[in-house]
Parts: sequence; structure tokens; C-alpha cells
Amino acid sequence: MSCSAPHLPQTPAWQRLRTLAAAGIPHLRQLLDDGRRTERLRLHAAGLTLDASHQAVTDDVLDALLALARESGVREQAAALARGECVNATEGRAALHVALRSPGNATGPWSADIAATVHAERERFLAAAERIRAQHWLGATGEPIADVVNLGIGGSDLGPRMAAQALDHLAGPQVRVHFVSNPDAWALYRVLRRSTPARTLFIVQSKTFTTPETLQMAASARRWLADGGIAGDAQRAHLIAVTAAPDRAAAQGYAPEHTFRLWDWVGGRYSVWSAIGLPLAVAIGADAFRAFLDGAHAMDGHFWSAPPERNLPLWLALLGVWNRNFLGCPTHLLAIYSSRLATFARHVQQLDMESNGKSVHTDGTPCTIDTGPIVWGGSGIDGQHAYFQLLHQGRHRVPVDFIGVLQEDTPLPLAADHHRLVQQSLRAQARALALGRDAAATAAELRAAGLPEVQVQALTPHRSFAGNVPSNILWLPALTPGALGALLAAYEHKVFCQAVLWRINPFDQWGVELGKAMLRSLQCQAS
Amino acid sequence: MSCSAPHLPQTPAWQRLRTLAAAGIPHLRQLLDDGRRTERLRLHAAGLTLDASHQAVTDDVLDALLALARESGVREQAAALARGECVNATEGRAALHVALRSPGNATGPWSADIAATVHAERERFLAAAERIRAQHWLGATGEPIADVVNLGIGGSDLGPRMAAQALDHLAGPQVRVHFVSNPDAWALYRVLRRSTPARTLFIVQSKTFTTPETLQMAASARRWLADGGIAGDAQRAHLIAVTAAPDRAAAQGYAPEHTFRLWDWVGGRYSVWSAIGLPLAVAIGADAFRAFLDGAHAMDGHFWSAPPERNLPLWLALLGVWNRNFLGCPTHLLAIYSSRLATFARHVQQLDMESNGKSVHTDGTPCTIDTGPIVWGGSGIDGQHAYFQLLHQGRHRVPVDFIGVLQEDTPLPLAADHHRLVQQSLRAQARALALGRDAAATAAELRAAGLPEVQVQALTPHRSFAGNVPSNILWLPALTPGALGALLAAYEHKVFCQAVLWRINPFDQWGVELGKAMLRSLQCQAS
Repeated sequence: MSCSAPHLPQTPAWQRLRTLAAAGIPHLRQLLDDGRRTERLRLHAAGLTLDASHQAVTDDVLDALLALARESGVREQAAALARGECVNATEGRAALHVALRSPGNATGPWSADIAATVHAERERFLAAAERIRAQHWLGATGEPIADVVNLGIGGSDLGPRMAAQALDHLAGPQVRVHFVSNPDAWALYRVLRRSTPARTLFIVQSKTFTTPETLQMAASARRWLADGGIAGDAQRAHLIAVTAAPDRAAAQGYAPEHTFRLWDWVGGRYSVWSAIGLPLAVAIGADAFRAFLDGAHAMDGHFWSAPPERNLPLWLALLGVWNRNFLGCPTHLLAIYSSRLATFARHVQQLDMESNGKSVHTDGTPCTIDTGPIVWGGSGIDGQHAYFQLLHQGRHRVPVDFIGVLQEDTPLPLAADHHRLVQQSLRAQARALALGRDAAATAAELRAAGLPEVQVQALTPHRSFAGNVPSNILWLPALTPGALGALLAAYEHKVFCQAVLWRINPFDQWGVELGKAMLRSLQCQAS
Repeated sequence: MSCSAPHLPQTPAWQRLRTLAAAGIPHLRQLLDDGRRTERLRLHAAGLTLDASHQAVTDDVLDALLALARESGVREQAAALARGECVNATEGRAALHVALRSPGNATGPWSADIAATVHAERERFLAAAERIRAQHWLGATGEPIADVVNLGIGGSDLGPRMAAQALDHLAGPQVRVHFVSNPDAWALYRVLRRSTPARTLFIVQSKTFTTPETLQMAASARRWLADGGIAGDAQRAHLIAVTAAPDRAAAQGYAPEHTFRLWDWVGGRYSVWSAIGLPLAVAIGADAFRAFLDGAHAMDGHFWSAPPERNLPLWLALLGVWNRNFLGCPTHLLAIYSSRLATFARHVQQLDMESNGKSVHTDGTPCTIDTGPIVWGGSGIDGQHAYFQLLHQGRHRVPVDFIGVLQEDTPLPLAADHHRLVQQSLRAQARALALGRDAAATAAELRAAGLPEVQVQALTPHRSFAGNVPSNILWLPALTPGALGALLAAYEHKVFCQAVLWRINPFDQWGVELGKAMLRSLQCQAS
């Protein structure tokens, strides 16, 4: 992310891409006529498959994108990140989330100290998760825990919530795990009204342990415990803290043995691999949690070693840059064809927009090129019956990542029929958005349906579709912890690569600070 | 929505607006310096309050927008809609959802026939809701119903799901209401695994009764009933159909007395006021459901009678057109400061994008102006810790509707503290996005914090904020059925007004048809 000499739009690769875009790219109808395109534009990594055949790119464009990656030094920057260099210059920090998913205490490019610290803390929180899950963690009155309530917002919520929902089929029967992120009192109340203080454990997640929303929720939780007869030191058995500021937690009465560590080199949006993942580990167990880390680590290995021409996260990044900077698409849609995985869109929304929603290069000069897109979406099949209308016929060109799961095994007798419908829907949408239907084909279809010519003429413009909407199709082999870890790591690397290509710092988030400052000033006025 | 003589961009109001935009609008920092602005730009309707003071508009802009509304004939078109004229020309239909919320069997501008039909069907489905709720609806084995499962997708899901969640505090204790929209087998299984066939009732919602996703879910539901010993005619006590095609439902074995009607003049995204709202009525009861209708009806009355200068839905529409067509903002964010109300964003996403995601005027000519925006969002306070970074510092200008609730009464001892934090957060964000913080103020703040000058210089560009992000603040007095009905009706009218202003048909959705055709063709290939 260092800003080397030439201004970005003046670099050879950028100029070449501009020229190619200005010359125009054939319609996807034509591009997809090439029978071997799907095979050529298919990549594999850590069990995932990317089908990029529906992207509006030619071989020339792909060559120029790969040249841009070379000129930008993406590989070198990725190596610097993994070595623990100070890639987050504005905050003077490393960004070492990749170290969190290294198996055992194996070192990587990062230091042995980091590896040992990560390993020790991981063993601690996974042991706690197993104790809770096995009902060996007892409350103040000696009863086992039945409800675990995670209190955290942003990065202390979205990652573990998303993964726990995606892996819902692995959740153990004894302990229910709840996520409360919104300080609106109702969000907490709706969980508490069905829980029992003596059998409830709160995980309070805050990197700084000063987050007002989280502290407010924790205050209410402790009041509820106290009103339920669990007060003072007795609360220690009902409270876990996850934080990079253990002293602050201790000052608020959290037991050191129930406090798990984060480090300043883990950004909130990259923290699900750390003790922030504790509620996930309680839900799915330590073995599945390790498999989740292993999947991410496998994607790390692919990202670091695969050549650019076969590098899946790098392709996601380059195709995104093409769509954003050269085809002019301001937003990016995630359409997910798996109900359990649908909240993955919200997680990537944070990951991407909080990282790359910037307007200043690392060297402090203002960006004259566009940076991170607006990321939105969710369940694709629900979207088909709602906002997809705009994708097909609105005045926008919205690049889509379709995400599907190849193998499904829900224990319902007709599950295979369900699954076929879902998969066919994904494929049909990718195809329909790419091909569209021109006026001639529309008119022919209306005539074939027996409409009188005057109606054919009147309806044809309303029932034609421009098509040419670019998309990726990403397939998970199955909804396993490993595949989920690989998927998430792929998007993390994608976002990082785009930051390098755009020469911005993806690891700070000063934009959120202004809102916090305004809040403090309003609070001072009010008090 | 008729296309009168001059091409839209050539109309006087449109040209005036272009001129004003080109001349430049003062920064919101300056506009908000006017102490009386908030008072002047505050509107009330049906209990709601709109604070439009944070919109980037001057008095001249507002005048020109109101002129645009006059020139476009918005009031006349609204009257034509309410009279039941064929406003949906491409499908040859009226759009009479406003008739669904008229109290009793009172007629409106629509016909007495319509009023009587609506009233009769409403009494039927509300009586059914009350029977279920009172546990007088018995399954085949004589047991009362404990779980109601709504099977429907798009308009047959989003409206009642959103309203049931928003009014969760009114849900009765005896019957749990579930919503399953995704044909992914897991979505249904996760509900069924905790339910008992003898005590479960399915509401199958499909306007055409041919929706493949819904029929697949219904087939699995019936198989589950059969496997649970409830087969053949015995299933009739466990199945309700809501449809505009009662014959198709009857042919599939649904009892006529358990079938409730829709009409072709109700679009799916406008149907929560009809029997599609049955699961909501089961959850909150008939009285609360009627209050929900009454709230919408009160907003209808405001919309039809309030002068343009004080017409809340019209203002939402005009400010949106200003942001979309003259300030060039392609997306629109809903930031909702109430956890219960957060899914309102998904509902409006469908309502707006499925209605106005069009590229062809009603007369069949292609649009040369932009139409419906991409609508996204959800919980605002969660967004602050995630994607708000991009709103503050990204390369986008995203107009925001902040939606808050003035009065809150969750039964938690510290609820008032929670509520204060949530409200202050809303106000702080609207202010921070509008004002930003320029480089001088940022540098001064960094110096005041004691940073050495070299760091002040290095960090200032990264910690400055352009501001000037336009927003509405919409306040509900409390989260009551009436306020929710009024809010939803306001957005319905907003979307309608924008369609009139853009001269497009908001009531068809041919864009979703192509995906369906592709699906059928893939299914034929596969079979």
C-alpha cells in the first residue's frame, strides 16, 4: 500500500484498462457463446470454485488486470502483512489476523512470539467453550449454563453471529447461544425474558472495553443478574470478557480467569478467528472451530502461493476493480443461495466497506479514483421476488457475487427437490442477468403467446431486458466449517488486495470516530 | 403516470432543478447555521414527524420541486389510483391497496363493490386469526394450534414478517408465528424440528398459487404432516391458503372455508393489508391489526388532502428525486434506530426497487433520466460500527433516512438509559454526516490532543470528513400498530409519487419474469 512514484491513473496498467473499457467490451451474450469460456475462467482454491465466466472481461482485460496486480506489488504487500510489518500506518500497527488461524503453535512469516501467544490464548478460550458446552461451567448457584448471550457490536458481533448461523446444524443441544448487538433495550429483553439468571452466561466483547453500546448492554445484564439474586462477586461465574484491555475489564469486576485476550493488531472486522469467536466455539465445539480456522489457513496458503493467473482472492479483487473503476459500478451485490449463509452478506458488508470506504491514499493525497463499493445483499432467492426487478430492468448495472452450496443434506424427505430448485434458481439468475432478452426475442415470444400485434408493440419495451450484468458464481462444496473459513478468508484477502490496488489503508476506520465524537458532545450537552 | 407532451428533461421544473444543481448548493454546514431551518423543514402526518433540515436543499430548490410535482400531476394521478382506474397499464389492472385499509365497509373514491368485498374478506380472515389465537382452531386430532408457519416469498413474506417483528411486544403467548420464505430445505426444517404436526398450522401464501418456491415448501410441509400421521383430508385443518386463484388451491386439496382471497388489483408488495397479513393478525390480534390499517388509512387521508407544501409522502418523494436525479446519488440508505423495526429496510427495499426499478416510461420510450435508487440498510446503530465508515469517508454520497422512535417502554430497569443512547446516536450520526470536519478543525483537534506537528500533518487528511451527506429524520411517536401502518403507507405513497414524477409504471414487475422463464427452461433441460 505504499504510494510509489506515478500517480495511479497514470500507471501503464491503469491506462491500458481505461483504453480497453473505452473501446467497449462485447455483450455477455457474445462472450458466453464461447463454449470453452467457463472452463478457462474457472478457479479452484481450498475446496471453493469460482466461475468467472459471466464477468464482462476479455482475455486482454484479464491480462491488463494481472499487469495491474504486478505493478501494484500485491504479492509483496501480502508478504509484508504476514511478516507483521506496520501495514496500518495511520494507527502504527500490524494487521496479523492471518496468524490467528495458523494450526497449533506453528510459526508463519510472523514471529514465534506471536505464534506462541496466539496458540496459548486459543487453547484457553477453546477449553472454556468446551466446558460451557459440556455443562461443566457452573453458575453461582451450582447450576450448569443453559443460555450464552454474546454482547458486542460491529466486529464483536457480525463474524461469530454469521458463522454460528451458517453452521447452525452443528449447534449442540444443551446450550443456546444468543447474539445481542443493538443497545435498544428490546433486543436484550427479548432474550432475557426467556432465560434464567442462574443459568445464563454473558460474553462481553469489546476490544477497548469502552464501547458505549456494549457497556450499556452489560450494565443491564448485570442488573438483571442482580435482580435475579446473583450480585457482587457471584456474578463472576456469569461473565466473560473478551478484550484487548483486560485491565479495564478487571476494574469492572470481570475475573481474570474469565477474561480472554485480543491484541491491537487484530481489527474488529478480522477478529472472528480470535477469542471474539468464543460464542461460535460454544455453539459448534472446539473441533469444528479448529476446522473453521483450518479452512481459512488453507485459503491463506493458496493466496500466498498460487500464481496470479490462478489466485482466487486476487481474481475477486481484480474483477471488482474492473467493475468499479472501469465499468463504473458503484455497488456490489452478494446473492446467497443458502438460508443459513445469508447473513454472510452483512459480514462482508462490514469487512469491505469499513476497510475500503476511504478517499485518501496512504500517502495522504486525495483519491481521484473510486475506492470501495457499497456492498449489499443477502438471500438471493428472496431477492428474486423483490429487488431483482431493478437488477433486470432498472437504471443500474450491479455486479453480483452468486454464492451457492453444491452438497446439501438437510434431514427432510424432499430435501433433494428443494436443493435442485435452489441451485437451478442461482444458475437461472446468473444466466438471465447476463443474457437479457432483446426486443426482437421479446416480440417473437409475445407473438408466439398469441398476443395481437398492437399489444406486442406496446408491451415489448416493457418486457425486454438489457442483460450484460456481470457476476461471479462461487461454489462451496458443502456448508462445512472448513468451507466457511475458506470463503471468509477469500473475501478478507480480496478486500486487502483491492486496498493495495487502490493504495489505501484498509485497516483504519477514522470515519467511525467522528460519529463517536459527536455522540460524546451530545451526551455532554445533555448531562 | 401518463406521458404528457414535453420530454421530461425538457420540462420547465426539471430544467430549473438542473440549473439550481449546476449552480451548486451551499454545504450543509452553512445551511444548518440557519437556526429556524429545522422548524421550517419539519412536517407532521398521522402522528409521524419528518425533519428534512439535513437535506441539501434551499428554498429555491424546494419551490422547484413543488413545481415539478404540479407539472407532473401527482395529485391527479393519486386520485385516479384511488378511484380504481387502470393505473397498471402493462398488466391492464387497477392498484387498489388503499381500499384494503379503509375502516369498516366505508367506500372511498373506489366502488361500493370493492368496499364490500374487502370488508367481507377482512372479517373472515380476522375471525380466523382470532380463533387460532384463542386456541379454538383445532387440528385433526382435536388439539389446539401452537405453531403457525407462514409459507410465502417476496410480497407474501416481507410485509407480515416485518410487521410481526416490529410489533413483537404485542405477540400473544400461546401461538408462535414463524415465517419461512426460502425454499432451501434448512429454512423449513429448523422450524419443523421444534414443532409437532398435530399442533401446527401452515398458511400457504401465493397470489397465483403457482410460485415454485412456495409450492415446494408446501409439499414438504404436507409430507411432514403425513409422516406425522396427518394425511389426506385430515390435513385440511392444518392448511390455510391465501391466493387470488382459489380454484388452484381447491384443486390441491385446500378447504374453501380455509382459503382467503386476494385480488389481481393488489400487488404482492402492497398486500400486507389484505389476507396476506393473516400471520400478522394471528401474532398481534384483530384489534391491533385494525389499528395497523387505521394508521395507514390516516396517512392516506393526509396524502390525499394535505397541500403539497406540507405533504409528507410527497416530500419524501421530491427529496429523493432531488438526490437521485440532480445530486446524482444512485443509492438510498435506511438507517433504523429500533431493533424491532430494523427489517423495515428489507420491506422498503422490495417496495421501492420492485416498483421503480424500471428503464422505460409508461409510453414505451426508454428513460433518459435515472429512476429508482438501490435501497439498502437496516439497523443504524449496528451500521455505525460497520459500513458507516464508507458514508463518512468513502467515495460515495449516500442519502439517508434515519428512522427513530420517540417513546420506548421495554420492561428493563435501565431501559431509559438504553433509549437515550439510541436516540443520541441517531442525532449524532445525522449531524456528523451533515457537518463533517474539515482539515483545519481536524488539525486543531490533533494539536489539542498533543500530537507533534509532523503527525498532525500526516494524519489530518486521514481524519478529516467531507460531510454534506443529506438525510431525513423520521420519528415515530412510539412503536404502535398505528404508527407502523402510517410509516409503511408513507413509503408506499412516496414510491408512487416518484413513479409519477419519473413517468414509469410502479405496479408491474416484468423484470422478475425473465428469471422465472430461465428457471423453467433449465428445469425442462434437467428433466
